[in-house]
Amino acid sequence: MNISVLGCGRWASFHAWYANHIGHNVKIWGREGSKHLEQLQTTHQNEYLSLSPDITYTNDLKLALKFADTIIISISSQQLRNLAKEIKKTDLYMQKTFILCMKGLEISTGKRLSEVFTEEIGEDCHVGVWVGPGHVQDFLKGIPNCMVISAKNTDISKHIINIFSSDLIRFYYSEDLIGTEIGAAAKNVVGIAAGMLDGMHYTSLKGALMARGTYELSNLIKALGGNNMTVYGLSHLGDYEATLFSAYSNNRCFGEDFVLNKPFSKLAEGIYTMQALLKLADKHHVELPICAVINEIVINHKNPKEELLNLFMRPLKAE
Amino acid sequence: MNISVLGCGRWASFHAWYANHIGHNVKIWGREGSKHLEQLQTTHQNEYLSLSPDITYTNDLKLALKFADTIIISISSQQLRNLAKEIKKTDLYMQKTFILCMKGLEISTGKRLSEVFTEEIGEDCHVGVWVGPGHVQDFLKGIPNCMVISAKNTDISKHIINIFSSDLIRFYYSEDLIGTEIGAAAKNVVGIAAGMLDGMHYTSLKGALMARGTYELSNLIKALGGNNMTVYGLSHLGDYEATLFSAYSNNRCFGEDFVLNKPFSKLAEGIYTMQALLKLADKHHVELPICAVINEIVINHKNPKEELLNLFMRPLKAE
Repeated sequence: MNISVLGCGRWASFHAWYANHIGHNVKIWGREGSKHLEQLQTTHQNEYLSLSPDITYTNDLKLALKFADTIIISISSQQLRNLAKEIKKTDLYMQKTFILCMKGLEISTGKRLSEVFTEEIGEDCHVGVWVGPGHVQDFLKGIPNCMVISAKNTDISKHIINIFSSDLIRFYYSEDLIGTEIGAAAKNVVGIAAGMLDGMHYTSLKGALMARGTYELSNLIKALGGNNMTVYGLSHLGDYEATLFSAYSNNRCFGEDFVLNKPFSKLAEGIYTMQALLKLADKHHVELPICAVINEIVINHKNPKEELLNLFMRPLKAE
Repeated sequence: MNISVLGCGRWASFHAWYANHIGHNVKIWGREGSKHLEQLQTTHQNEYLSLSPDITYTNDLKLALKFADTIIISISSQQLRNLAKEIKKTDLYMQKTFILCMKGLEISTGKRLSEVFTEEIGEDCHVGVWVGPGHVQDFLKGIPNCMVISAKNTDISKHIINIFSSDLIRFYYSEDLIGTEIGAAAKNVVGIAAGMLDGMHYTSLKGALMARGTYELSNLIKALGGNNMTVYGLSHLGDYEATLFSAYSNNRCFGEDFVLNKPFSKLAEGIYTMQALLKLADKHHVELPICAVINEIVINHKNPKEELLNLFMRPLKAE
């Protein structure tokens, strides 16, 4: 089957590798002048992986859309609306299935990525999300994992799962798109908090962080009309190993470096997600104590140790 | 306030240290001839900690019970029924509060420890459990944590919390004694599974393990009349950092050594808990896939890799 991958960063290149690995014909699209695209096209590799020479490349969006009925999108979350507008203009989106392999929320609106995409393309477009745990490095070594697909209707999820299942990735599907997207995005904020605890040698509070982090997000998801249990599945709790405990987690490393006053080149994705979550929480009258504390520390420069200890060491109360 | 600690192993000695640390008068009881008791009495220390010389020692159970109205019990789970019988015989249990600082189930019956204790002492005895995350080593360094108290009625929990709260341990209470005890005991089984995954270099599957482990136990707790959400609080999920990720976790180390065919001196506590849980699950018609697989591997000598991959790599299904 033909698969187009829109995007050529780390996670996009993994998806291209994976689709090729399980026998599909793959075309990668990147913007004109993209250094990532140029590197992949000329060397067939990046710092994470090597790609088969069978994979083709283009910077022509129309060509990429014509190539396949199944389109993986893996770009920076904040760029999704623009890309969706460009896809809309091509008029080449009918009867295609788009799969968003990205975790985030639109900062300016607090919207989920499938909402953003559907707003631009139209309500009847087929869009699913593909999230959950998994390190690129592990998959390349042949270490399997479980991931999760969600869409507005389960037929779309099952269609995607049929195309991409293998011994390397076993998919579950979730009927709760809201909870899946919020949970997948929000785990990066919990990852930042975990990194801060690690940096202060309070690693043992990561247990309490897991219990409280899932809980506050389950409340938000419920208020948004999702299922409060989704956060305890693969899209959020199932991603805690990779996000809260792995030395490779960008968001965890950011939190650790932040409290150690180490320089960091750019804000972690979780910081943007945190701002979007706080906007959503405010609108829906839900409290997000962990997100609020990370915001106080990173944006308002409050003392990390004081804020985090206050968060966990509250007075007598029920769980 | 006077506090007696029944038991003189690692966790009991920590409780004695902690009660003394926050200003209580402490007496430790151990059985006649106990080497742990003798060591603490003569050297005021064990391999984990040093105790204040203010702490007194006895092997006379009556003396220990007369000394205090608040009695901490921290002994091997399978010995609890015998100790409860001995306490009953002294007739010195009225108006006292007993706090079980231990995690396990009675193997022969599948019963929770507070059930076992109440069966022997009587329905009207005041008994609470004190569980949740926390490494002895971290507490000694002054690193705080949150823990959880549960009892049949919340007044008992609040009474215990008032006696033991400090800047080092902040308590939450849970109104679900069933869920708290099952979750606290069962985390050791999930810890064994985590160690097996680590040993096979499948550490990245620990994310899926966390999502599936909590889920199967929430089903059992519900069937037993508890609250299916308790497992996501401090007593179970909140203890995953210490149990699934710490290099010190006995149960995690057991699982790792087991799949690496390293010799181990004795079965981990989680193996007994697993057998009790499977008994309970059978009785209440609940499936516990993770417990069942660990049982197949450890007791029935099935292939760990095959069994664990089968567990996670199941066919298309909803979460």
